[in-house]
Amino acid sequence: MSARSQDILSQTAQLDPISTQPFPNSKKIYITGSSPDIRVPMREITLSETVLENGTHEINPPVTVYDPSGAYTDPNVTIDVRQGLPDVRSNWIEERGDTETLPTVSSRYGQTRLTSPELSTLRFTHPRPPRRAKAGYNVTQMHYARRGIITPEMEFVAIRENQRISVISSRASESYEAAIPKVITPEFVRDEIARGRAIISANINHPELEPMIIGRNFLVKINANIGNSATTSSIEEEVEKMVWAIRWGGDAVMDLSTGKNIHETREWILRNSPVPIGTVPIYQALEKIDGKAEELTWELFRDTLIEQAEQGVDFFTIHAGVRLAYIPLTAKRLTGIVSRGGSILAKWCLAHHKENFLYTHFEEMCEIMKAYDVSFSLGDGLRPGSIADANDAAQFAELETLGELTKIAWQHDVQTMIEGPGHVPLHLIRENMDKQLKECDEAPFYTLGPLITDISPGYDHISSSIGAALIGWYGCAILCYVTPKEHLGLPNKHDVREGIIAYKIAAHAADLAKGHPGTQNRDNAISKARFEFRWEDQFNLGLDPMRALEFHDETLSKDSAKQAHFCSMCGPHFCAMKITQDVRDYAQQKGINDINAAVEAGLQEKAEDFKTQGSQIYHKL
Amino acid sequence: MSARSQDILSQTAQLDPISTQPFPNSKKIYITGSSPDIRVPMREITLSETVLENGTHEINPPVTVYDPSGAYTDPNVTIDVRQGLPDVRSNWIEERGDTETLPTVSSRYGQTRLTSPELSTLRFTHPRPPRRAKAGYNVTQMHYARRGIITPEMEFVAIRENQRISVISSRASESYEAAIPKVITPEFVRDEIARGRAIISANINHPELEPMIIGRNFLVKINANIGNSATTSSIEEEVEKMVWAIRWGGDAVMDLSTGKNIHETREWILRNSPVPIGTVPIYQALEKIDGKAEELTWELFRDTLIEQAEQGVDFFTIHAGVRLAYIPLTAKRLTGIVSRGGSILAKWCLAHHKENFLYTHFEEMCEIMKAYDVSFSLGDGLRPGSIADANDAAQFAELETLGELTKIAWQHDVQTMIEGPGHVPLHLIRENMDKQLKECDEAPFYTLGPLITDISPGYDHISSSIGAALIGWYGCAILCYVTPKEHLGLPNKHDVREGIIAYKIAAHAADLAKGHPGTQNRDNAISKARFEFRWEDQFNLGLDPMRALEFHDETLSKDSAKQAHFCSMCGPHFCAMKITQDVRDYAQQKGINDINAAVEAGLQEKAEDFKTQGSQIYHKL
Repeated sequence: MSARSQDILSQTAQLDPISTQPFPNSKKIYITGSSPDIRVPMREITLSETVLENGTHEINPPVTVYDPSGAYTDPNVTIDVRQGLPDVRSNWIEERGDTETLPTVSSRYGQTRLTSPELSTLRFTHPRPPRRAKAGYNVTQMHYARRGIITPEMEFVAIRENQRISVISSRASESYEAAIPKVITPEFVRDEIARGRAIISANINHPELEPMIIGRNFLVKINANIGNSATTSSIEEEVEKMVWAIRWGGDAVMDLSTGKNIHETREWILRNSPVPIGTVPIYQALEKIDGKAEELTWELFRDTLIEQAEQGVDFFTIHAGVRLAYIPLTAKRLTGIVSRGGSILAKWCLAHHKENFLYTHFEEMCEIMKAYDVSFSLGDGLRPGSIADANDAAQFAELETLGELTKIAWQHDVQTMIEGPGHVPLHLIRENMDKQLKECDEAPFYTLGPLITDISPGYDHISSSIGAALIGWYGCAILCYVTPKEHLGLPNKHDVREGIIAYKIAAHAADLAKGHPGTQNRDNAISKARFEFRWEDQFNLGLDPMRALEFHDETLSKDSAKQAHFCSMCGPHFCAMKITQDVRDYAQQKGINDINAAVEAGLQEKAEDFKTQGSQIYHKL
Repeated sequence: MSARSQDILSQTAQLDPISTQPFPNSKKIYITGSSPDIRVPMREITLSETVLENGTHEINPPVTVYDPSGAYTDPNVTIDVRQGLPDVRSNWIEERGDTETLPTVSSRYGQTRLTSPELSTLRFTHPRPPRRAKAGYNVTQMHYARRGIITPEMEFVAIRENQRISVISSRASESYEAAIPKVITPEFVRDEIARGRAIISANINHPELEPMIIGRNFLVKINANIGNSATTSSIEEEVEKMVWAIRWGGDAVMDLSTGKNIHETREWILRNSPVPIGTVPIYQALEKIDGKAEELTWELFRDTLIEQAEQGVDFFTIHAGVRLAYIPLTAKRLTGIVSRGGSILAKWCLAHHKENFLYTHFEEMCEIMKAYDVSFSLGDGLRPGSIADANDAAQFAELETLGELTKIAWQHDVQTMIEGPGHVPLHLIRENMDKQLKECDEAPFYTLGPLITDISPGYDHISSSIGAALIGWYGCAILCYVTPKEHLGLPNKHDVREGIIAYKIAAHAADLAKGHPGTQNRDNAISKARFEFRWEDQFNLGLDPMRALEFHDETLSKDSAKQAHFCSMCGPHFCAMKITQDVRDYAQQKGINDINAAVEAGLQEKAEDFKTQGSQIYHKL
């Protein structure tokens, strides 16, 4: 990092103003729960009125949507990334009385970073003292759930999932044996977490978090990856990318940094993130030993887990399923091992001729996880990197091991999700989901795509969103996005936006197909707006109002065009929707109340009926 | 059109040079059939060698891919859009001896356009005399097929479908009762056409056409829509868009022009198009009466059909299923009738209180179609325009009528495909496909998307490619693309490219899932290139090599980076693929030939085995 960018960071660090602008005609609202400090954020989109043919106006009620963007889109909150976000959860955590603040960080590495003078300009300026479970306590949401306790976090997510939807308009659906209730209650949330079928990934050291839930009976979530590498990026860019990702709908963010100063980068991200932050601790552990995988030790790794847990990381990807015996299964693959974590551990296992130390130390990891409520994201280090390798012996052997480990984690009441592929052709996706549900007893599945072909570099956000929509429908709980730069380079802000929207489409499509209550309300509202030529409402109800407006204005830029009862596709004479309105008016005017009956009465009779009405039924445009 | 653009068109009309550049490391090849004038174009992608660890080189055979881009990507052909493309089919058509050339065009409208002096600068400069079946003859490919004749067109598509693939590498697949053979023979093509399960849409007045086949047992095809409207665009832009669309992989193009000079625009497009061109004749018919739908007559429409058939249009969208009785079924819909053609006919039906004249004159249309071999594309005028309206009574009533009409068309040996929706949530897509196969007796299905949510304006190419991949897998034969501008404006060249690639992904994914022989070869080749860090090969094997290269170079632009055994995502230390190569080398070095057996022998024994090998197994990077 240059001296200049360091200076920017510590003294004037600020976000691109675009990232903090509310969406057009949208406002941040908060729904208060059973206590005043449970304030659940949502975004309310205000709509214009419909002007009816007779000149009267019809009100279109505002549409409330799920909103992971945090305080950044709340004009009443002053954002200062040097201060970090407002505290949401500290009172809840303190009230439970099972944690204590520590005088300083516990990890050796964390202590070194705190005291290095050359890092002073990089360090986050307002660090929090770390918090840990008191000796003998387990502070996971799963532990509370199993003891019958409904935490504020659980109530928060219940309110959040319902999206303030009163009118439930979903079609008959196919949810593949998911068990989605009409209304999400805090008790349902508790029960799902106790069962292991959902997690609230919420480290006690991440009080800025606005809790969210991941599970097959809740809205499908999406994760965005950010992170610098040895070759690119800087701290403020990563913070900006996180804010940008949640602006467009990212529900969780993984910081996959592998470059310099990843400890400090992570601190800045966490203190400014209202969504769960995940990491792959092995990346940093490897960084500490200059990339020499064979020098990894459990002690080094353990110190890294504690370092990150005390910063507030909400979930760790742990590749404990890459067992020594499975590694040779990959040798005949077309694309071997493509997971970074998987390949690092494979290298370690072969170098030492030993079982993966993450597997052998798994219960010790559980002890750490439950002292901070970090969730496991059990990594799929042997996921296929090509269509040719999908659903092979190596992949499924590892998945079976992840099922075993899930049950061990659950014995410790540690929240757990399972990572999945990767590259899988359409017809093999279902087998992935079904096997995961079976082996892992419905622990939430968290997949990367899958991409349904290998031939789309530059467009992998599209090929993977196809797979993501499908696996989300089949039961996947959270979809890790893929950007257009996948396989080619690191994503910039434009790519992050493209990736997020592609995945919001996949997640929403899955929710629609599963029949999640109220999901279709937004589709119906936008379709009504489209039908009624309420152009601005159509833009604003979409996933990316700015893009929709920009595209519309490329062809018809004048403001008057946004009032027009036609569009550039058809021009004024041809507008299908205008003509349909005429059909509807006709049916109403002529009192054809029971249309189906009329149709059944037969064409001839109908034609006679029409004939008797006579005259011109269309209004001139 | 301005005086200046007229001038450009008739005197110097030329294409953007980008549209005629061959793809990197690709060359146009032609496979010759049973006679020297059957020359089937393909694109051969040359690959670099793999450098093995021991310094020896391994040859990677070139990959041959389907290529609809025509002579534009053949540097040996001089392109002059004023002359039109080389003639491919005239000899074949003449040899059949069942057609005659006419002294002039038969349609009244066509005659008017030919003799209007003010159109002289707009007219295509080298018109062909129109050709028609001799009295009493039927010149459709279906008619020949049913008489047991294998035409050159059938042989052409058989060679084309096989893509010169000798190594068949497809996984177990799920084709939903499709009947895809390992090798496509001319006789199989004939049989499928005779059966009505496939069509070769090839008007005898479109001799520039390189024949292609549409059917569930063949590669899934995609269609791109172009066309001007009253508000935008000009002739040369539309020709350029057609060339651009086929460059990226469009297999067919529909000219949906509704603006000025659509007769002349179409002539330019046809004379320069190597792919089938479709139109919606009702658009032009309506244009002729200044948009007053109620003034439409069968005579006017008939004249339009003949006008377009003699220009060489290969398929007509005909909304003959919008029956009067079904129109009131749409009145209670959220978004009524959204098809332009559907709404025009609904307006006509209501205005006259009469049955749709396309339905009542259907057999007369068949007589025209078979005199030129124009294929029906039976339009879905009542397709749903929103998730809320999917699979409703109106939609399915029309589909049943399209099934009836298919059988009537088949009585005349007229080739027929069926258009489908539209907006359909994931879980209702299968029902669409199954019902179409049943009602229309497996006539090829041709769907627009479907979009699987309504909330993605600006990204509808993505939401619809998800639905397209699914319905292609279930049995849809051709997918009509949707661009990012859908619902917002007319697509420009950038949007056409985005839409095409999204749909190439969907079509290829469907072919993979259905197990079309050889489809996976390209995936395997690109994955091998990726694994071996053959960056240029990875780009060139992708659907859009230029985009892939551009994205790669944004992060690592130097040429040396394209030789690197790492990429910007991970940096040199972390590269998963490099480590995997080490794993594979190890397995080979140590003579672990039967890896599965070794694994089964158990972990302990394995560990012992590893221990005895000792020492460092990884090569330093």
